[in-house]
Amino acid sequence: VDADAIERAKRAAGDNAAGLVTDGMTLGLGTGSTARWFIAAVARLVADGMRLRGVATSLASEAQAREAGIPIIDLPAGGLDLAVDGADCVDPDLRLVKGAGGAMLREKIVAAAAERFVVVVDESKLRDRLGAVLPVEVLPFGSAATLAAIGRVCGVEPRWRPGTQDGRYVTDNGNLVADVPMEGGIGDPEALAEQLDAVPGVLGHGLFLGMSDLVLAARADGGVTELRPRGRS
Amino acid sequence: VDADAIERAKRAAGDNAAGLVTDGMTLGLGTGSTARWFIAAVARLVADGMRLRGVATSLASEAQAREAGIPIIDLPAGGLDLAVDGADCVDPDLRLVKGAGGAMLREKIVAAAAERFVVVVDESKLRDRLGAVLPVEVLPFGSAATLAAIGRVCGVEPRWRPGTQDGRYVTDNGNLVADVPMEGGIGDPEALAEQLDAVPGVLGHGLFLGMSDLVLAARADGGVTELRPRGRS
Repeated sequence: VDADAIERAKRAAGDNAAGLVTDGMTLGLGTGSTARWFIAAVARLVADGMRLRGVATSLASEAQAREAGIPIIDLPAGGLDLAVDGADCVDPDLRLVKGAGGAMLREKIVAAAAERFVVVVDESKLRDRLGAVLPVEVLPFGSAATLAAIGRVCGVEPRWRPGTQDGRYVTDNGNLVADVPMEGGIGDPEALAEQLDAVPGVLGHGLFLGMSDLVLAARADGGVTELRPRGRS
Repeated sequence: VDADAIERAKRAAGDNAAGLVTDGMTLGLGTGSTARWFIAAVARLVADGMRLRGVATSLASEAQAREAGIPIIDLPAGGLDLAVDGADCVDPDLRLVKGAGGAMLREKIVAAAAERFVVVVDESKLRDRLGAVLPVEVLPFGSAATLAAIGRVCGVEPRWRPGTQDGRYVTDNGNLVADVPMEGGIGDPEALAEQLDAVPGVLGHGLFLGMSDLVLAARADGGVTELRPRGRS
C-alpha cells in the first residue's frame, strides 16, 4: 500500500465533503487524518468569504480549526446542518466503527445532532462485515469492574488503551478507553450496542449505527465513491 | 408526616440491612439520608472487630465512612459481596428511581458489581407505579443538544439541576444533571431506560431496573417490611 496514495485519497474525500457546504451552515468538524482534510477545505471556504461556524469533536480539531480561521462555537441546542467525520470501518449498511482517535463520544454527540452526517474514508475502510478494534469510553470510578463487564458482553478480553496518565490513555472528557479486539467481526452490532449502552460505567462506544447519511469513499484512482443507506435516495 | 418518625424509620432500615453483613465482606456504601444509617451501623461492626471494606458511591459517603473508621477501597474487578443504598421511589416489581442525591451513576456501577443489592427506604417511597423526578447525568460537551434529546425521549421538558458551577449542579464525575419531571408516572421504564441509554451524551440515569435483590421498607410502627422480586425467594 502506497502511503502517499492513501493520503491523496483521504484528501480527495475531505475535499469532496466540503463541496456539500453552503453559506451560513453550522458544521460538525470530525477528528482524525481524513477529517483534517475536510477542516482544511472548510478553512479555505471561510477565507473565500463564506459565513460558516464549526463545532469541534476534539481539542485537536478545535486547535486546527481555530488556527485556520474557522469560528468555533458550542454545540447549539438546535443542532447542526452538516457533520463530517472519518471512520475506522464501514460495512455495506453504512454502520461504522469509530474511535481509533479516542474522540468517539464527542463525535457521536455531534453526529447525532446533525441534520446530515457524512463519513469520509479511503476505500480501505470499506468491509463486507463490521470488524475492528472497538473503543469503549469508561468512567474512571469502578473501571476495573466495568472492564470485566465489557469483556463479558463482548466475549473477548478488552485492554486499556495505553497513554500518559498512570500508563493509560485519558479522553478529552477525562475518562478511560477500553479497546476491545473485535477485528474478527461483530456479529450483531445493534445487539452489542444496546448491551454496551446498558453497562453502568460505559459512557460511550465506537459503534455508530443508523447514523450515516452518506459515505464518501476515496478510491486509489483518485475518484470518490458515494454510498447511501439502502432504501434511501 | 412526622419528621422524627421518618428518621427513625430510615435508621431502622439501615440497621436492618447491617444485619446482612458478615465478617470479611466487601461492601458497597450508598449515598443519602437512609444509606447514612447503614454506614453508621457498619462502622459499629468494624469497631466491634469485624473485618470489612467499603466502596463508596460518593465523596460524601467516602468522607463519612473514613471518618467512622471503615477502610475504603476502589471497586475491585471481582465485584462486591453486598451493596446497600436508598431510593427515591420503589414500585411493586422493585424497580427504582434514584438520584435525588446526584450520585446515581456511581451508585449504579456499585449496585451492578454487587452479588446482592439491597435497597433501604422508609415506606413512603413505595408506590404502585414508578414516578419521580428522574435524574440524567449528561456530558458537559454538547449538553444543550443532549438536553433537547432527553426531552424528546421523555416527552416532558427536563431542567438542569441548579448548583454552584455557573448556576448548575456538577456531579462527582464532573458532569451535569438534567432533572426530568416524571412524577406523573413512567409508563414503560425498560423502554425509557433503553432509549435514554442510546442518547449520545447521556452517561447515566436514575432508573435501576432488575437490580434489586431485596427492599427493606421501614414502617411507621418501627417494623421493617422485606420485599423480594416476584419469582425469587
